[in-house]
Amino acid sequence: MTLPRRAQFDLPPGVIYLDGNSLGPLPAAVPGRVSAVISSEWRTGLIRSWNHAGWMALPARVGDRVGRLIGAPAGSVVMGDTLSIKVYQALAAALEMRAERRVVVSDSGNFPTDLYMANGLLSTLDRGHSLRIVEPEAVIDAIDGSVAAVMLTEVDYRTGRRHDAAAITRRAHEAGAVMIWDLAHSAGAVPVDVTAWGNEMAVGCTYKYLNGGPGAPAFIYVRPDLIERVVPALAGWMGHDAPFAFELGYRPASSIERLRVGTPPIIQLSALDAALDAWEGLTMDEVHAASVVLSERFIAEVDRRCPDLTLVSPRDPMARGSQVSFAFEHGYAAMQALIAGNVIGDFRAPNIMRFGFTPLYLTEADVVRAVDALQRVLSERLWDRVEYRIQNRVT
Amino acid sequence: MTLPRRAQFDLPPGVIYLDGNSLGPLPAAVPGRVSAVISSEWRTGLIRSWNHAGWMALPARVGDRVGRLIGAPAGSVVMGDTLSIKVYQALAAALEMRAERRVVVSDSGNFPTDLYMANGLLSTLDRGHSLRIVEPEAVIDAIDGSVAAVMLTEVDYRTGRRHDAAAITRRAHEAGAVMIWDLAHSAGAVPVDVTAWGNEMAVGCTYKYLNGGPGAPAFIYVRPDLIERVVPALAGWMGHDAPFAFELGYRPASSIERLRVGTPPIIQLSALDAALDAWEGLTMDEVHAASVVLSERFIAEVDRRCPDLTLVSPRDPMARGSQVSFAFEHGYAAMQALIAGNVIGDFRAPNIMRFGFTPLYLTEADVVRAVDALQRVLSERLWDRVEYRIQNRVT
Repeated sequence: MTLPRRAQFDLPPGVIYLDGNSLGPLPAAVPGRVSAVISSEWRTGLIRSWNHAGWMALPARVGDRVGRLIGAPAGSVVMGDTLSIKVYQALAAALEMRAERRVVVSDSGNFPTDLYMANGLLSTLDRGHSLRIVEPEAVIDAIDGSVAAVMLTEVDYRTGRRHDAAAITRRAHEAGAVMIWDLAHSAGAVPVDVTAWGNEMAVGCTYKYLNGGPGAPAFIYVRPDLIERVVPALAGWMGHDAPFAFELGYRPASSIERLRVGTPPIIQLSALDAALDAWEGLTMDEVHAASVVLSERFIAEVDRRCPDLTLVSPRDPMARGSQVSFAFEHGYAAMQALIAGNVIGDFRAPNIMRFGFTPLYLTEADVVRAVDALQRVLSERLWDRVEYRIQNRVT
Repeated sequence: MTLPRRAQFDLPPGVIYLDGNSLGPLPAAVPGRVSAVISSEWRTGLIRSWNHAGWMALPARVGDRVGRLIGAPAGSVVMGDTLSIKVYQALAAALEMRAERRVVVSDSGNFPTDLYMANGLLSTLDRGHSLRIVEPEAVIDAIDGSVAAVMLTEVDYRTGRRHDAAAITRRAHEAGAVMIWDLAHSAGAVPVDVTAWGNEMAVGCTYKYLNGGPGAPAFIYVRPDLIERVVPALAGWMGHDAPFAFELGYRPASSIERLRVGTPPIIQLSALDAALDAWEGLTMDEVHAASVVLSERFIAEVDRRCPDLTLVSPRDPMARGSQVSFAFEHGYAAMQALIAGNVIGDFRAPNIMRFGFTPLYLTEADVVRAVDALQRVLSERLWDRVEYRIQNRVT
């Protein structure tokens, strides 16, 4: 039994944490690593640590570690910036690759920032592009020969609904479009194989299932055969072929590092690097299988004990990510009451109670205890008291 | 005597650090703050810390603290991303404000990434813009009625030469151009007054004189009367008026926070916040006056004792930033030898030895000891041994 790896996480006593899909908990290796970076590499090494402590190489080195979890070969993933920035880079590169086309397809289940960034890019380009946003089920049919790029988040942040990434990628390629997958809710949650899918690019964040900490840097993947064809719209010095030659003209690196932009956040990157230790020796198939056991148990218990809640995630575990969501009219207040009882999930408007299942630090016993608490919130109408406090502004 | 504040920094014993213009040393308040963020806010607060620990408000709160050092009023500066990204945001906004014009003026003394990012933006726009790069002395004459934006770094990263920001801003405005100042080598080094200058935007980094640590987030300033007119090209969810409403459409915040993009790097931002404590109670005039005493003493000692070195910084202290640079044919090897002797400056191609003077933690006695070491490197030709090792690949 390789799971759970509870000892590799420092969870507060008594808390059942079902929000690792939003912010992963603290991996036990992080404080020591960050402390060493600050008190040894920064304090003592000072400027020399850019070379001597390997800071300059960290974005690509950590990228390789993330790459292993999404089926990407070494040298095809690099870390930096935020997911919003990586979305912009990927879409700008895709539109440059399909300069004669004017349509971007996405769906209403995409995380809003992806759509905002896309619209911001299209407005900046001002070249008549349009963003075609369809329902998730309608994506396949929306991809035609006018489409430059399809940009989707594989797992829906609200419902956990998972796209058929292989099929959509095939359809995008049949239509001659570039496929970009946002793996924010996939990396570390479900088996991902960008190599098998063949998508041109992928992006994702690392503060959810990868437990990199608040504001941990994002990643970008480019299919190896395309790396040298990607034109960086955000042409920062760290993506230059020779950043310290200080040439006036930009020449992108021949490697994936051309998608680096500015000076990397070394403290956050080091925290993420330490956090990734928890994945050593595991396959995503193992992790996902354990996650399915947890989420199936949760659904079965809720179905049986909490009839007021309506499952809005797919019932087929293969059709969803590593989270389960229920609709409930008083969901916001119910979640507050649940959190007050040390079972932490989260809420997404208008009425969704969201629970993430992360088998690295959760057991089936945790799941049963979480439903015990949820059942009590509902049967004792604890949400009612919270709503009373909200309505009467009592804190 | 308010300076130096050596006790507020944790410098390794025996080191004289003259590279705070590249990476500031560790402020003593940082380890404790970072440790609290990790072990209390992240570990115990978990997802709740976005609200309860003030994480969501941190970019604007820290922005106000940086703002004080550059003459910006509260509510006009926000933190995030890297300087390269902030350059892109500022220039994209400027070009949108002057949509009918097609020229961007910069100079050959600008830091390369600013020029790279500008060229990347102009290529992405593909609307016939050109980047007019002139010598620093020729900037004023290069600004004419075709110019949409003037984008300059106030203090030259190699020579320390300082632009007359007020005069150039005036000239830009006479010509109807938007003025963007990059304050990377100014913030915390020299008195800056964006309010008095009247420039539309300013950007800068915080890992140099502000000691925020490797990869600390950047800042962007927008003149208060223009904040609601700035169209964010990088339209990320954290700049949305209601990020957690998860609307499909982007509506920028009415405040400076519209220039936020993705999830902020909380650990690095907190380190920076703690680092800024060292500036409490100081004015930039005091800091600069102390810096001038140090750099003038350094130049006088080097002139007298190291005749092989040629000053390439302006001799007038008011015409330079808080660094002093000397040209020397064997500068690279000489700097390596100096660093081996615990006096840390840095080298910039082709032949520049660069020394930063940061009065928060340096004294005149440090300066004299640094020149003692430099004199020894030169008189004993210690650089010769380093070059021998480099040429013969001996490590």
